[in-house]
Amino acid sequence: MKITVLTLFKEQFDSFLNTSIIKRIIEKGLVEVKVVDIRDYSLDVHRHVDDTPYGGGAGMLMKVDVLDRAIKDNRSPNSYVLLTSPKAKPFIQEDAYRLSKMDDIVIICGHYEGVDARIDKYIDENISIGDYVLTGGELAAMVVMDSLMRLIDDGINADSLKEESYTNGLLEYPQYTRPYEYDGQEVPFVLTNGNHEEIRKYNLKMSLRDTYLYRKDLLDKKELNDEEKELLKEIINELKQEN
Amino acid sequence: MKITVLTLFKEQFDSFLNTSIIKRIIEKGLVEVKVVDIRDYSLDVHRHVDDTPYGGGAGMLMKVDVLDRAIKDNRSPNSYVLLTSPKAKPFIQEDAYRLSKMDDIVIICGHYEGVDARIDKYIDENISIGDYVLTGGELAAMVVMDSLMRLIDDGINADSLKEESYTNGLLEYPQYTRPYEYDGQEVPFVLTNGNHEEIRKYNLKMSLRDTYLYRKDLLDKKELNDEEKELLKEIINELKQEN
Repeated sequence: MKITVLTLFKEQFDSFLNTSIIKRIIEKGLVEVKVVDIRDYSLDVHRHVDDTPYGGGAGMLMKVDVLDRAIKDNRSPNSYVLLTSPKAKPFIQEDAYRLSKMDDIVIICGHYEGVDARIDKYIDENISIGDYVLTGGELAAMVVMDSLMRLIDDGINADSLKEESYTNGLLEYPQYTRPYEYDGQEVPFVLTNGNHEEIRKYNLKMSLRDTYLYRKDLLDKKELNDEEKELLKEIINELKQEN
Repeated sequence: MKITVLTLFKEQFDSFLNTSIIKRIIEKGLVEVKVVDIRDYSLDVHRHVDDTPYGGGAGMLMKVDVLDRAIKDNRSPNSYVLLTSPKAKPFIQEDAYRLSKMDDIVIICGHYEGVDARIDKYIDENISIGDYVLTGGELAAMVVMDSLMRLIDDGINADSLKEESYTNGLLEYPQYTRPYEYDGQEVPFVLTNGNHEEIRKYNLKMSLRDTYLYRKDLLDKKELNDEEKELLKEIINELKQEN
């Protein structure tokens, strides 16, 4: 896969591209990353890339002509062009799976004050990592890159992908490691007794419990099987008794 | 405000802390940022900070004793301790406002494979930037820091805060800058005629239109006033005629 990032702040990607996991994926040749300075596509002697909005208003907007030139010069016919922007439903794990199957992605980092709306003609998709405002699209681009690069990496164990949060519509069950006892808190006994079926059932129950407590919205979206329904009933009863 | 980050990958924060806006906020003394290596709190000669999970399963978990020591050594009585984790509703702009009013925040960057669940006793809040999996909590911590540091910065114009997306429950209206015509696309005429009331109304309508098209879920949550209801009716009729 090839990922090209168009940004006004190339240097913001330095640390990210040098983090151990990301660096390894790049060095293995699984993903080729190119970071391009949008300013190189300004025709202006002062290398301006933004201007004031028509109709007034605060802030400066990134110019559509500069961006269009930057896209044209860096895309291939197969490129899928993304713009970080609030104009999209928040990115979710399914989007990471979907984008990780593409061969060539261009990500334009939007300026937090805005981009000329005519950019829509030159992009395939607006992408938002969540309903909050950032100083620029650079962190958003890194979040998207990180989430999909790890899916491409064959070094990431297929088992951890299967067990991780979101993949089955539930939060991951709570996990524990040594020491067995710490500050008055013990590891649940069932996890230490080696009975695989009991452990499976306990973990499923705890996964349902955490999802019920912290992300009830995910439970509402999920179709539960009979075992899960039964366990959820138990959880709700137990929580009632605790209160 | 003081923000202390506990991480296994300190160097991942280098570029972020050197970006122009963030650096300026730190240099102004508005926010003090400290990045701490969790590994310094391992008592082990090999500086191990993780171990295999009880009950089996893929991956390594961050140890609760190491994290507890790191938190205790870096928190004050007033610290509000966050852990990046999937065990939370996704972070939204209101959370950024809420956290930006605190004096002292500690953010623990979770390991993507997991953290011993007993950490819950030592933190105030789990924080998730969205429903996707990242290789580590570092980017999530930067996203949270970025979103709230910009709110603290008095250098960010109060007007841009007021007009930006999410603040009034609608997407920002589309904006345009020079050139007036580009590649067959013209700036909407109303924005160039200097009639402030017409521009206000047009922008409100376009803001409703984009929200209707791209984030209908936000509209469903918002209480519209009479003018907005009327404009939304117009939009729906116009969209019907377009199709």
